[in-house]
Amino acid sequence: MDKLPASLPRRRLLAGTGATVTAAALASVMRDAAAQAAAAPATAAAPRPLPPYVNWKDANSLIVHSNTTIETRRSAFGTSIVTPDEQLYIRNNLPAPDASIVADRDAWEVSIEGVRNPRKLTVRELKSMGLETVAMVLQCSGNGRGYFPSKPSGTPWQVGAAGCVLWSGVPVRVVAEALGGVASGMTFMTGTGGEKLPEGLDPKSVMVERSVPAAAMADALLAWEMNGVPISLAHGGPLRLIVPGYTGVNNIKYVKRLAFTARESDARIMSHGYRISPPGANGDPSQPSVQEMTVKSWINGPGTDGKPVAAGTVQIHGVAFGGMHAVTKVEVSVDGGKTWSTARLVGPDLGRYAWRQFVLSVRLPAGSHTLVSRATDAAGNLQPEQRLENAGGYNNSSWADHAVKVVVA
Amino acid sequence: MDKLPASLPRRRLLAGTGATVTAAALASVMRDAAAQAAAAPATAAAPRPLPPYVNWKDANSLIVHSNTTIETRRSAFGTSIVTPDEQLYIRNNLPAPDASIVADRDAWEVSIEGVRNPRKLTVRELKSMGLETVAMVLQCSGNGRGYFPSKPSGTPWQVGAAGCVLWSGVPVRVVAEALGGVASGMTFMTGTGGEKLPEGLDPKSVMVERSVPAAAMADALLAWEMNGVPISLAHGGPLRLIVPGYTGVNNIKYVKRLAFTARESDARIMSHGYRISPPGANGDPSQPSVQEMTVKSWINGPGTDGKPVAAGTVQIHGVAFGGMHAVTKVEVSVDGGKTWSTARLVGPDLGRYAWRQFVLSVRLPAGSHTLVSRATDAAGNLQPEQRLENAGGYNNSSWADHAVKVVVA
Repeated sequence: MDKLPASLPRRRLLAGTGATVTAAALASVMRDAAAQAAAAPATAAAPRPLPPYVNWKDANSLIVHSNTTIETRRSAFGTSIVTPDEQLYIRNNLPAPDASIVADRDAWEVSIEGVRNPRKLTVRELKSMGLETVAMVLQCSGNGRGYFPSKPSGTPWQVGAAGCVLWSGVPVRVVAEALGGVASGMTFMTGTGGEKLPEGLDPKSVMVERSVPAAAMADALLAWEMNGVPISLAHGGPLRLIVPGYTGVNNIKYVKRLAFTARESDARIMSHGYRISPPGANGDPSQPSVQEMTVKSWINGPGTDGKPVAAGTVQIHGVAFGGMHAVTKVEVSVDGGKTWSTARLVGPDLGRYAWRQFVLSVRLPAGSHTLVSRATDAAGNLQPEQRLENAGGYNNSSWADHAVKVVVA
Repeated sequence: MDKLPASLPRRRLLAGTGATVTAAALASVMRDAAAQAAAAPATAAAPRPLPPYVNWKDANSLIVHSNTTIETRRSAFGTSIVTPDEQLYIRNNLPAPDASIVADRDAWEVSIEGVRNPRKLTVRELKSMGLETVAMVLQCSGNGRGYFPSKPSGTPWQVGAAGCVLWSGVPVRVVAEALGGVASGMTFMTGTGGEKLPEGLDPKSVMVERSVPAAAMADALLAWEMNGVPISLAHGGPLRLIVPGYTGVNNIKYVKRLAFTARESDARIMSHGYRISPPGANGDPSQPSVQEMTVKSWINGPGTDGKPVAAGTVQIHGVAFGGMHAVTKVEVSVDGGKTWSTARLVGPDLGRYAWRQFVLSVRLPAGSHTLVSRATDAAGNLQPEQRLENAGGYNNSSWADHAVKVVVA
């Protein structure tokens, strides 16, 4: 991780030059360097190269499943609660739009509909209307799919399609109030992404449009900043709909339309995608949609890098979150769930939508150990032992599935 | 800020290659690119190039005073509380050590002295002993020096020699307890940096060694992680002594010795440097040392980028911290301090050593306005209007000095 005496500038170093050619040349150099890294006798497994739109991320911290599905390695998660941009997972349902949309961020427009006085608002206008900051777990609906023995189609995410992120923007409720309030009868909040749709297909079959209960607007943001900087294109800049407590897909990137609606969107990603379907069945609108997250935790160390752990005292650490509720307790077992000890919650509490970091100090003798954690939320929900089987491999919060096997030398 | 369609990998992309030559070649390319950026018709002032050891930082967010003194632009501070690594200021009293010290972080040794059972501990051993995470304001003692009309020698920092950062490490008190406890009579905690000292000089005259009251150990850490990743060399990795509430210089980088001592260090940086000296006087041990921070706030926007602000409602935002105490109130004035309104504290509260973000929504008519803020801490201390004059230009918390003049069009 630390072999280089000097290091490399990142995406904002050359910002403002407009030097596309230079950027392309640099990207080429970087690819060469990545190739050399792959060819060199590596001390760790050589990472698969990152696609260009996220080539500022840390390849060593990531597992590249495809150009649009990239997860954080379990061993890369630190212990400082907030997930750095360069380690945060990527999951795009469509390729990211052209980078020209972040050339003048303040000019980006979102159409606000289903309010008494619907209109378009620019990011510049939104910035004058209000400001709030929220920390929340951003987690792909399919995080943990890789632990389903049924091998559902879709990316086999382990734990790393999740991160805890800070967002800044204007509260959706402030925007709605400024436009006269939500129109009567509108029970859903529907966001539409600004992706360029593939030609020749029914737009409804491919567009990214999701509905959540209108009540979710209470804590929702139209956000322009992530972790202290303007939201990168890869993560949905210049403007993203943030719905704390809801799985990633409900947090619409490059949001171009925010509508309060009487019905759920009829886009396929809403009507048939992201449904909790019985094993073997297809998704349909009668099934529960993947929306609110539930209580979950996992251990991030030690031993997740596959190296033997030294016998003696170790600090078992990980993250726990409740989705819609704060986490109140985390228990850790070093015998695969037979016996449990209460872990300590450490570090700042960033609010009920964020994850907490937990630590248990324990002596581990030489041998093989199975470490697991289970969390309890403020509503009394206990993280379950077993996953809920479903065709899409969604919402895996099973503590048993998230066990870590460590060899103590 | 957003002209590049693709962006650049950062320091950890090539980690593990050991390819020094490649790194040098890349650094050269980056310098060329920076030169092109400087030559191009720039939409903003072309940034001065960053020195190689921090070339992964965001030059557009920074003011490069020298190779060892770099501050964050006021207009670059976001609204998400935690300051990203690539924007965080740099202030090194000596050049950073060779990067070889972060080649094997876990092998770094720190000598723990002034305890009943003194010994050396590796970072690997420290990691097994305990884990805590703290958010804190890291602020250079001279932050705000640039507002002293007396123009003290030293870097003329404005607001940007400060950031709010998350650190993870082992509590110093846990380490001390594990080694039998602090030896009797030891009233100071003294940290020594691992910099390579210039030859031919009395080591005491140049070494970075600082003492704080031993009671500060209660919340101090020996930290190996900053903002979720291993601490960069530039910020003191592989191991830094973190003393929450104390100015930057007391947070010893590359700490190689942590000693509980009966007396303050006699290193010159402690005995004569960083003292609150009367204007015109030299520092000496009889004067107060620059240690605990006091209540302070400043406004980061709008209008700090020098562009006119549109008339109408604006969200005035900034940061406030108490040093040793939590912030309880922030007031904002748009008339240079004649009248005040209470601002709203927004976003998660990261604890008493962190800064809070404040926001005041206010209508500004066309014209020129002087925006100021003043904070109150939990002990009832009110941020003062005037700086305390001193020869070194330290501890400037004057709200008047930190005014922002904005032109509303």
